[in-house]
Amino acid sequence: MSIIQVCLGIDIGGTNTVYGFVDKDGKLYDIGSMETRAQEPAGIFFKRLGEELNKFSEELKTRFELAGVGVGAPNANYYSGSVENPPNLKWGTVNLVKEIQKIFNVPVAVTNDANAAALGELKFGIAKKMRNFIEITLGTGLGSGIIVNGDLVYGQDGFAGEMGHIIVVENGRECGCGRRGCLETYASATGIKRTVFQLLAEKNTPSSLRDIPFNQLTSKMIYDAAISGDAIAKAAFRFTGKILGKAFADVAALFSPEAYILYGGLAKAGELIIDPAKEAMEENILCFFKDKVKVLHSGLNEGEVAVLGAAALIWNEIDKYKISYE
Amino acid sequence: MSIIQVCLGIDIGGTNTVYGFVDKDGKLYDIGSMETRAQEPAGIFFKRLGEELNKFSEELKTRFELAGVGVGAPNANYYSGSVENPPNLKWGTVNLVKEIQKIFNVPVAVTNDANAAALGELKFGIAKKMRNFIEITLGTGLGSGIIVNGDLVYGQDGFAGEMGHIIVVENGRECGCGRRGCLETYASATGIKRTVFQLLAEKNTPSSLRDIPFNQLTSKMIYDAAISGDAIAKAAFRFTGKILGKAFADVAALFSPEAYILYGGLAKAGELIIDPAKEAMEENILCFFKDKVKVLHSGLNEGEVAVLGAAALIWNEIDKYKISYE
Repeated sequence: MSIIQVCLGIDIGGTNTVYGFVDKDGKLYDIGSMETRAQEPAGIFFKRLGEELNKFSEELKTRFELAGVGVGAPNANYYSGSVENPPNLKWGTVNLVKEIQKIFNVPVAVTNDANAAALGELKFGIAKKMRNFIEITLGTGLGSGIIVNGDLVYGQDGFAGEMGHIIVVENGRECGCGRRGCLETYASATGIKRTVFQLLAEKNTPSSLRDIPFNQLTSKMIYDAAISGDAIAKAAFRFTGKILGKAFADVAALFSPEAYILYGGLAKAGELIIDPAKEAMEENILCFFKDKVKVLHSGLNEGEVAVLGAAALIWNEIDKYKISYE
Repeated sequence: MSIIQVCLGIDIGGTNTVYGFVDKDGKLYDIGSMETRAQEPAGIFFKRLGEELNKFSEELKTRFELAGVGVGAPNANYYSGSVENPPNLKWGTVNLVKEIQKIFNVPVAVTNDANAAALGELKFGIAKKMRNFIEITLGTGLGSGIIVNGDLVYGQDGFAGEMGHIIVVENGRECGCGRRGCLETYASATGIKRTVFQLLAEKNTPSSLRDIPFNQLTSKMIYDAAISGDAIAKAAFRFTGKILGKAFADVAALFSPEAYILYGGLAKAGELIIDPAKEAMEENILCFFKDKVKVLHSGLNEGEVAVLGAAALIWNEIDKYKISYE
């Protein structure tokens, strides 16, 4: 039996940390997870992660050779290798590369989850033949990873690609970043919930959503209501898609991307969000770009995208610098 | 006497076409120009250009060897090598690469003037050590050339980098592109003129600009008035800089550029435009990027930037593909 080269992809989220072994072609051999326990210090997390991974990889040692480790984590910086005060983890600043290399002495690269997803789409998903596209995560917030000339845009400091924080409404909704009117306050799971509440306040239309308090409402409930014909829920999707599409039009003038590729909780609503987004994009886009930019759903499985993305990041580094472990 | 390798840079403008020979280090050996005569067909233009360039280069043949030709022209497309219906030339679509290669049988590359300027800044100007920056031309309109990871952003179709056409005011001023509220309707020589007229309409403040009709007013006159203390002219610069700075803040979230670098007629106003732009950028930028993004004046001579940029474009291609003519 021949030994297969794999990379380990790790996605550190606020609630769970997911990891899996992925070969050069994006085949995921095994996937596991553990609780992140955001309130515990980073030291304890890495100790637990090491134990998990060693247990996990013990079984695989006979079949696999580890070429590298890629990590997706909130606020993780590709250049420094650190997470810098992640909003949902009590870690402060931690050098992920160093911590992971204590467990596995192989090349390690880190970036944020949205960037990792874009690389996963480029290497293993529907963007394999694209050189310019923008991957959009519609989760609690709106994350983006931007590919230009076949490479991720990191910018001067590793923090580029914050499309969730372009201002789309002057003096609009309060954003967690301290400013107002950011795209993610409208186009995200939280954004559509805010839109529902705004519509419930403005209109008299009956809606099943009138019985649900703000803190219990999820984008899944809004989706289910829309599918059942609820007028408020449908209007909320249209409004969300429209804001998103106008932002797509604006940003297209800068990047001329081949596609916007959506994934994440809210993106599961499919045409409920994609159709109004496309329509608003075409209505608002500069004439050069009309009918040129696609709006697509990710080609990766929702549950695997984060791990595949993290693995793609390190496979990409290995290809780029021709680091060979054969 | 040793033979020096040079590239020919050609900038085709609506009024004049400027050309010059530039070596690898950005030394400009000679510069010449001819009228473009925008109303004449492209065939006549290239015949005249051939005669001019042959005359021009005859004198230089003993000292120089031509390695390539770079062309900056309105709506010129890097991928296709063509200008496609340039707004200020009656040419339709013309393949510039083929036309120039009838004159000189060397590698030829084309792009629009704003992209060429960005490459000039990268190769010969103040951005030599930068890998991520945005070059802004404040002329009649607002052009931009975006450098990411040390390379120009062309996008899927060669038309990326249209920062002048991001929407900054919802239902704002009419733009030549057929839409409303584009950045260039505010931040450009034409934009500041429109702002002056808006301020003259709104305010009772006395101003020397009240004696000048719209069609005669230039950004130079507004600059001179501002320097003499004219309150309307000063307010127009502040407003223009503020709109520009807010756009800088938004676009920084996508690219995390090291700098915005300004050149062109309106940029000559220096701190009158740069100071309010910086201030508005810092006020509006996402916290990660505060105090990180510079706003600078171009390091190239105003009269030479177009030719140096066009030459940089082809030097860049020669470097990239290691085309050797030695």
